[in-house]
Amino acid sequence: MSRVYNFSAGPSTLPELVLQRAASEMLDYGGSGQSVMEMSHRSSAFQSIIDRCEALLRELMEIPEDYAVLFLQGGASTQFAMVPLNLAVHSGKADYILTGQWAKKAASEGKLLLGEENVHIAGSSAEGNFSYIPEEQSLSFSPDADYVHICLNNTIYGTLYPYIPDTGNVPLVADISSMILSQPLPVSRFGLLYAGAQKNMGPAGLTVVIGKKSLLEDARPNTPTMLRYKTHLDAGSMYNTPPCYAIYICMLVLEWLKNDIGGLKEMEKLNREKAKLLYDFLDESTLFKGTVEKDSRSLMNVPFVTGDKDLDSQFVKEAEKAGLVNLKGHRTVGGMRASIYNAMPLTGVKALIDFMKDFEAKNR
Amino acid sequence: MSRVYNFSAGPSTLPELVLQRAASEMLDYGGSGQSVMEMSHRSSAFQSIIDRCEALLRELMEIPEDYAVLFLQGGASTQFAMVPLNLAVHSGKADYILTGQWAKKAASEGKLLLGEENVHIAGSSAEGNFSYIPEEQSLSFSPDADYVHICLNNTIYGTLYPYIPDTGNVPLVADISSMILSQPLPVSRFGLLYAGAQKNMGPAGLTVVIGKKSLLEDARPNTPTMLRYKTHLDAGSMYNTPPCYAIYICMLVLEWLKNDIGGLKEMEKLNREKAKLLYDFLDESTLFKGTVEKDSRSLMNVPFVTGDKDLDSQFVKEAEKAGLVNLKGHRTVGGMRASIYNAMPLTGVKALIDFMKDFEAKNR
Repeated sequence: MSRVYNFSAGPSTLPELVLQRAASEMLDYGGSGQSVMEMSHRSSAFQSIIDRCEALLRELMEIPEDYAVLFLQGGASTQFAMVPLNLAVHSGKADYILTGQWAKKAASEGKLLLGEENVHIAGSSAEGNFSYIPEEQSLSFSPDADYVHICLNNTIYGTLYPYIPDTGNVPLVADISSMILSQPLPVSRFGLLYAGAQKNMGPAGLTVVIGKKSLLEDARPNTPTMLRYKTHLDAGSMYNTPPCYAIYICMLVLEWLKNDIGGLKEMEKLNREKAKLLYDFLDESTLFKGTVEKDSRSLMNVPFVTGDKDLDSQFVKEAEKAGLVNLKGHRTVGGMRASIYNAMPLTGVKALIDFMKDFEAKNR
Repeated sequence: MSRVYNFSAGPSTLPELVLQRAASEMLDYGGSGQSVMEMSHRSSAFQSIIDRCEALLRELMEIPEDYAVLFLQGGASTQFAMVPLNLAVHSGKADYILTGQWAKKAASEGKLLLGEENVHIAGSSAEGNFSYIPEEQSLSFSPDADYVHICLNNTIYGTLYPYIPDTGNVPLVADISSMILSQPLPVSRFGLLYAGAQKNMGPAGLTVVIGKKSLLEDARPNTPTMLRYKTHLDAGSMYNTPPCYAIYICMLVLEWLKNDIGGLKEMEKLNREKAKLLYDFLDESTLFKGTVEKDSRSLMNVPFVTGDKDLDSQFVKEAEKAGLVNLKGHRTVGGMRASIYNAMPLTGVKALIDFMKDFEAKNR
C-alpha cells in the first residue's frame, strides 16, 4: 500500500493513526464484539463515544459552559437554513457578509426564508473575485438584525478573516467548516459556530454546531422539527439516530489532536509553519503565484496559478502521477489549490514545494 | 476477537464480510492511496462508488426507470418533513395511517407543516397498542389527498403490512426503513419510498429515497433548499457533500446481497426461514409469547414477553452474557425484541432459540 498526499478541499486527508485505529476496531470496538457502525445509538458504549467526542471538543476549543455542542447532519448547506429559521425570531432581519461562494449561498437561503427585503449585505469582496476579506471599517451592520453571518475561512478562494467582526449586541454566526480546530478561536465572541466535519474533523455526514444555549430555544413558526436547534439540544443530539460512525471518527481525530499534536496552539504553530513554507515559495516563484491578498490568506486553503491554463492542467496531471493528488483549483478561481488541513503533514507540504520547484525549473 | 450476535433494532448488525472488506480498504481504496473517507466527492473514484451503489440498488429492487434514487441525510425523521413539504402541493391535504410510533411522528410533522385540519387519519391500530395492521377494508382514504403515508414495517411493535394499500390515483408514500431489501417490493405501487440506512443497508447517517421523478419536481413555497427533493434530483445527490463513507458501506452491503446471498428472492427465503423458526418457537413456548397478531408479524423485528417484568430483565441480562446482545424491548412494548435483519445469520437465530429454551427450562 502506498499512501498519497491528498490536497483535497473536503472530504480531505485524515491522520493515518486515526485510520489505522478505525481499521483495527472495525469488527470489534473495545471488546464489545461489534463495530461502532453496528451499535445501538442508545447503548452505553455509544453514549461513551458521543460524550467523549463532546468533552474533547469542549476541552480543545475551550467552549464555555453556556454554549451547547450539537452533532447534526446535512452539512453547512442545512445550516444555511437552520440559522435564519432559528435565529431570525425578533426583527426577522439578518446581515450577511459576502466573501465567497458559500457565504453567498448562505445569504441566498436567508433571502429565501426571510424575504429578500430582510437580508442586508453588510460587506462584500465580490468585485475583487473574493480575493480578500473586506476591511472591518468598511462593514455596515444593521442595528436591529437578529444576527450577522460570516464565513470565517473561504475554502474556494483561500481567504481567512484577519479579524473577528465586532457586531456589538447582535449575535455573530460563523461558518467555520474549513478552519475549525486549525487554531484557537475565542468562542465567546460568537453566538453560533458551525462546521461540516469533512475538512478538519472526520468524514462527511456530520455537522457540528456550537451555539450559545440562549440562542437555541426559539424558532420561526412552522420550522420543521429536525431543523430546530431546540429539538437536538433537548435530546443530546439523539432525537433520532445520529451519524454514529462519523462521530466516532471525529472522536479519534480529536484524540489525535490532543495527544499526538498537543492541542490547538501546537496545531496552529504547525499549520503556520506549513502555510509559511508554501506562501514564501509562491512569493518567490517566477512561475507560480498566489491569488489572495497577503493579509487575507488562509492557513488551510492555498490557491495558486501559473497564469497559463494549459500549464496549470499539466501541473495537476504530473503532480498526481507523483502522488500529490486533488490539486485542481475550483472552477471559479481556476489554476490550483492546495488544501493543507490539520492532517496534512509537513512532509506533504515539503513534497509539494519540491515538486513545484522541479516543475518550475522544467517549464520556465 | 469474539463477535456477538447483535439483535439491535438499528443501528444494527452488518455482514462480517462487509466489515472485513471495509477494514482492509481503510487506508487505501482500490489503489487510490486514500481512504474512501478522504476522497473528494467530486473525484472519479467516488463517483464510481455512488454510481455503483445506485446501480446495485436499482438492480436488486427492480426500480423502474421513471423513479429516482436519492442519497440524503437526516434520517426518516427528516423525511417526515420533506414528504409534506414536497408532495402536498395540490390540495395541501394528506392521509396518514397510524401503525406505530414512527407513523405517528410522521403524521405529527404533517400536521405541523400542513395544518391540523389538512391531515386525515385514514386508519389506526392505536387502540390495540399497535399490535396489528388495520384491515384494508377498514381504511378511509380522502379522494383529494396529495398522498397517503404509511410505515410499512413497524420496528418498535414488530408489525408488517400483509398487503399494500390500494390508494388509487393518490400516491402512496412508505417509510420502509426497517424492511428495505428484506424481500422484493413492487416499487411501482408506491409514489415514494424512503429508508434510513442503519437497519438493512449500512451505517446511520444515510437516508435513501426512491421516488417517482414526476413527484419530485415541485415543493411548497419557502421550503428550504436542502429539504427540496428537486435540489438533490438535479444534482445527482451531490448538491453538497453527501455522506460518502456511508454510501460506500451501503455499496458493499448491496454487493454482499447480490453476490453472497443471491438477490432479494433468496434474501426473503432466508428471512422467512429465520422468522419462522423464532415465531414457531414462540407459539409453542410456555414461557415466552409474541406480542403481535399472526397475520401482521414482521420478518425483521420480533417482540416477545414472558409476562413478568423481572424475568424479562433477567433474560436480557443473561442473554447478553451469552453473547446475544441488544434484546431489550422498546419501553412502549416492554419485554424483549429480537431484530433479525438481513445480516443476522441463521446461526444467530438458532443460538437465540437455544438460549431461550434453556432459559425456559430453568425458569418454568
